[in-house]
Amino acid sequence: MTTHAVYDEIRSGIDRLNDFELSTHDLSEPRERIAHADRVHFIGCGSSYWTGVIGQYASFQSGIDATAHAASEYLFAGPPITEETVVVAYSQSGETSETVTAARRAKEGGAVVIGITNSADSTLGSVADEILVTPAGTEKAVLATKTVDAALMLTFSLLESKYSEYTPSELQRTCRNVIDQDFQAAVAVLAEAKTLYTLGQGIEYGLAGEAATKFGEGALLHTTALPTPEISHGPIANAAGEPALVIATRESKSSLTSEVVSKLRAAGVTTIVLRRPTNDYGGDISIKLPSRSPDHPIVPLKILQSLTYKTAVKKGYNPDDPPELSKHIEWSALG
Amino acid sequence: MTTHAVYDEIRSGIDRLNDFELSTHDLSEPRERIAHADRVHFIGCGSSYWTGVIGQYASFQSGIDATAHAASEYLFAGPPITEETVVVAYSQSGETSETVTAARRAKEGGAVVIGITNSADSTLGSVADEILVTPAGTEKAVLATKTVDAALMLTFSLLESKYSEYTPSELQRTCRNVIDQDFQAAVAVLAEAKTLYTLGQGIEYGLAGEAATKFGEGALLHTTALPTPEISHGPIANAAGEPALVIATRESKSSLTSEVVSKLRAAGVTTIVLRRPTNDYGGDISIKLPSRSPDHPIVPLKILQSLTYKTAVKKGYNPDDPPELSKHIEWSALG
Repeated sequence: MTTHAVYDEIRSGIDRLNDFELSTHDLSEPRERIAHADRVHFIGCGSSYWTGVIGQYASFQSGIDATAHAASEYLFAGPPITEETVVVAYSQSGETSETVTAARRAKEGGAVVIGITNSADSTLGSVADEILVTPAGTEKAVLATKTVDAALMLTFSLLESKYSEYTPSELQRTCRNVIDQDFQAAVAVLAEAKTLYTLGQGIEYGLAGEAATKFGEGALLHTTALPTPEISHGPIANAAGEPALVIATRESKSSLTSEVVSKLRAAGVTTIVLRRPTNDYGGDISIKLPSRSPDHPIVPLKILQSLTYKTAVKKGYNPDDPPELSKHIEWSALG
Repeated sequence: MTTHAVYDEIRSGIDRLNDFELSTHDLSEPRERIAHADRVHFIGCGSSYWTGVIGQYASFQSGIDATAHAASEYLFAGPPITEETVVVAYSQSGETSETVTAARRAKEGGAVVIGITNSADSTLGSVADEILVTPAGTEKAVLATKTVDAALMLTFSLLESKYSEYTPSELQRTCRNVIDQDFQAAVAVLAEAKTLYTLGQGIEYGLAGEAATKFGEGALLHTTALPTPEISHGPIANAAGEPALVIATRESKSSLTSEVVSKLRAAGVTTIVLRRPTNDYGGDISIKLPSRSPDHPIVPLKILQSLTYKTAVKKGYNPDDPPELSKHIEWSALG
């Protein structure tokens, strides 16, 4: 039996999926603002940046023009901001320096700022025009997992995305199944790896980025996320003898992904493919979603969280105490 | 004396910087289109993607709203396209499947497509509303260097960027100096490295991405590019004992970059800082620009090309014949 806080939080994120129904937030105004924005800018750092990348692709699906920015880039080298810009700023603590400073600057430039955080009583809460508090509660582990779940669910709801049509209980049932799956073959390869590429397209590229952050900080594995076919435009050469994790869980099978997997194998890369049972991509190792799994990013997300956690444990690391990491980073340059 | 085609092309890229003056292209119409676009989308694969990232940040400096997209993402999960969208599509050969297909799709959606290529007589040439041929000529090496130089110079000119104010001879003088600099201390560390992070902000993040592609394909070094402070939001943990290359060549010194360098050193990362002689960031190893070097991205770009080349040679690789790479990748899924 495990006693790691990270694992408890991975489970707890699932338990809280239905708290959105109980949420006291009235989302009608922020939804209205996003739907009528000229541009939506998602900003955040680390996992919050990748949450924004997923938000960007979900926006495209809904016909909304959006971009995701690392908050530091947004602050120092950002796009033009107008009064028709809506900024969605993610910060678990509500105190991330780059994000709070960038949100403040955007507001001064005329943008509407919607903050998404676990803590209403935070600096982001005081800066934002509208602060949405996720039902995640305080994350006990340094590695954010349930925060990402909650921020994503809230984002899909804000965007009135097709993903918000699934009932929480449908998602919970599948998610509870998948996190305790046997990932032994994949974990054995990942625990021995010196480097890793995580690959996906669209929302699954966002998931690849979030997974790269988690593998990097929790399992101390240097990981680069790329849009799937991009690995053929350069990096494939250095992946020989190392694994690549391909995220390809959509219902429609991608023949381009099959070609990439085949090129990777020919180059000596061990391919681990996260996929539906019906879509065989010819990878060395497959991690399969349950049959008739909802077509919702939360399912592969939970698998990836669990996979990172198990890889960290297999490597002998304590995922509750990752080195060099703290929940909140201070920069005196932004003080 | 070296005999590698890559080195000759790194030099040749500099020689051709002044050919832009002789260019027969009249840029007034594409300039007009970009200046009046609602959105500019830069698309490309590999190095061409990173050229687009630099184009995006240069656009922001000129107050133009722009985004850079890996062409495959643009094709499969792209933003809304309108008749006021201008797409700038980069492809050295003009035949890159993802880029050509994405450009065609964008044109069907009403966008104006400007193609930037070394070869007018290409599929991109037949798709684009306007095809701009760089003065790079055919790249003899598989690793694109002079193509990137030329595509960037053309982009700055299209954007009427502040960078287009430098005379070619000013840039050439500095660039010829820097590529033969002694990078021995940095090369010794990079040649022994198992992994590398390249860091920068804004345009220098774009340069970090281009450098990551080159280190990955030419020197077979798994490299991840990140916006400078992002390394503290997760990945720093796995960088201990390995190098990070920080690109910080702007005239104004960044105190945030100093803080990142100091955090990296405290975490056991060997920091190599590409900087001006006057801006000391406290790195373990410095690569210095000449005094009074123009504030133009071509200068650090040429240093990074030369640094990758020398690292590849030091590792015993033939940079003219990188494994698993070809100038042109075919996908039957896009055929």
